[in-house]
Amino acid sequence: MSTSPDLKRLSLNQITTNSWTLPEAVTGCKQAGLAEIALWRDKVQAYGLKKSSQLLADSGLHISSLCRGGWFPAGSQKERQVRIDDNRRAIAEAAELGTDVLVLVCGPATDKDIAGAREMVAEAIATLLPEAEQAGVRLGIEPLHPMFAADRSVIVTLAEANALVERFNSPTVGVIVDAYHVWWDPDIYTQIARAAGHILGFHISDWPVPLPNVLLGRAMMGDGVIEIRRLRMAVEATGYNGPIEVEIFNREIWDSPGESVLEQIKARYLAHA
Amino acid sequence: MSTSPDLKRLSLNQITTNSWTLPEAVTGCKQAGLAEIALWRDKVQAYGLKKSSQLLADSGLHISSLCRGGWFPAGSQKERQVRIDDNRRAIAEAAELGTDVLVLVCGPATDKDIAGAREMVAEAIATLLPEAEQAGVRLGIEPLHPMFAADRSVIVTLAEANALVERFNSPTVGVIVDAYHVWWDPDIYTQIARAAGHILGFHISDWPVPLPNVLLGRAMMGDGVIEIRRLRMAVEATGYNGPIEVEIFNREIWDSPGESVLEQIKARYLAHA
Repeated sequence: MSTSPDLKRLSLNQITTNSWTLPEAVTGCKQAGLAEIALWRDKVQAYGLKKSSQLLADSGLHISSLCRGGWFPAGSQKERQVRIDDNRRAIAEAAELGTDVLVLVCGPATDKDIAGAREMVAEAIATLLPEAEQAGVRLGIEPLHPMFAADRSVIVTLAEANALVERFNSPTVGVIVDAYHVWWDPDIYTQIARAAGHILGFHISDWPVPLPNVLLGRAMMGDGVIEIRRLRMAVEATGYNGPIEVEIFNREIWDSPGESVLEQIKARYLAHA
Repeated sequence: MSTSPDLKRLSLNQITTNSWTLPEAVTGCKQAGLAEIALWRDKVQAYGLKKSSQLLADSGLHISSLCRGGWFPAGSQKERQVRIDDNRRAIAEAAELGTDVLVLVCGPATDKDIAGAREMVAEAIATLLPEAEQAGVRLGIEPLHPMFAADRSVIVTLAEANALVERFNSPTVGVIVDAYHVWWDPDIYTQIARAAGHILGFHISDWPVPLPNVLLGRAMMGDGVIEIRRLRMAVEATGYNGPIEVEIFNREIWDSPGESVLEQIKARYLAHA
């Protein structure tokens, strides 16, 4: 249990250094010696898709994923179509950037019918699947913590995400395992094993006690109670040896200089991941 | 789906009118025409156990439950024994007050070992079981929302609570189903059905969007997204026809006059429960 993962697998999820523009994040990763980065669509758009694509190609950084597609449930067929169209653009952006993973945050219900919203998620993925296949972009369903069930994702357990993946039975659909979202689950190690062969990403951060805030509460690895290494080793036991993204929504970290955040990330990754 | 539950089943969980003393809460319930109340140990202690017991007996109110026992995991055997002893007192208090349900909030892990903490919960319940049986007090395991996994309860799904109950296979151990804690669970209706015969209580409130606060965020029925009536009817379909407790941790409600809170509770109960 005491072996650190290879630093080559460490990926900076761009949200962790939220105050950095895309070029700043790329430069930061290069200077810190990282090999991987995960991008956010809004930051790519701010810099321009073509320029971003060129910048990343020149940098030599591998893009572990693009965040994010999803947000599927809506109150009308018309609005659901708008969401589908936006996801089509996200798939095209991922392909243009040269990453093969689009992270899906599936979205909340628009009314009290959470079961109905879950069906809308399945329908939307079915609709997008042929296009994603053709673009060579895999869809990574990320179950969020159940505290986000009402405002961000009706998919809140790895069991649900696994069931969706099994329903499609396509190499183009898989799951993202984020330690912060799944650590509490009494069934998590069974579900990680069940996800063997379709884990498209592994995200880490930590859960501080007490949790200061629902959205921005997550912490740097080592500053909370999550058994990150145990989760990482379970994910590896399935055969996943891909990027490990550090994804932290935290105002204090956002307000810190990106360079020092990256240095801390490297140290904490080696100590806790 | 449109039938309201009988008002006779409505129970005021005392935390909902947190600014009221025990005698004030009893008077408030009587004046509002309620037949049920759920008590908290700190408020009983503040008024005195014997006096409380007499007051409740004189009032004619039925006590749906006593909150709370639990908080079992601890870092040492000695400290775990201290918790066991406190739960013994809680069982005795429940018996003295004349309620046959003690709600268990099982407690957090003291380190990162959440699986180990879950075992400590099972061990503690096994230890307490003979005493609870003898006292005629049933232990109601209440799974809390997973956002409380780190600081209040390692038991976070009804599936886990059901598995614990099945392990003991005793009429003295059951579950409490609280809508706020379980509504997000994709497996909830299966798990409610599985709980048939061992549901010891049903609690309601609502989940507002956005959730303003982890601990004090819950809302009055109707002010959120929970399908309360659907959950209530699923609970009833198992054969449970006991008290429905309104349990709301919410500063604004705590700061409102108890009388008007009770009137609102009755109206919202009829409309949404």
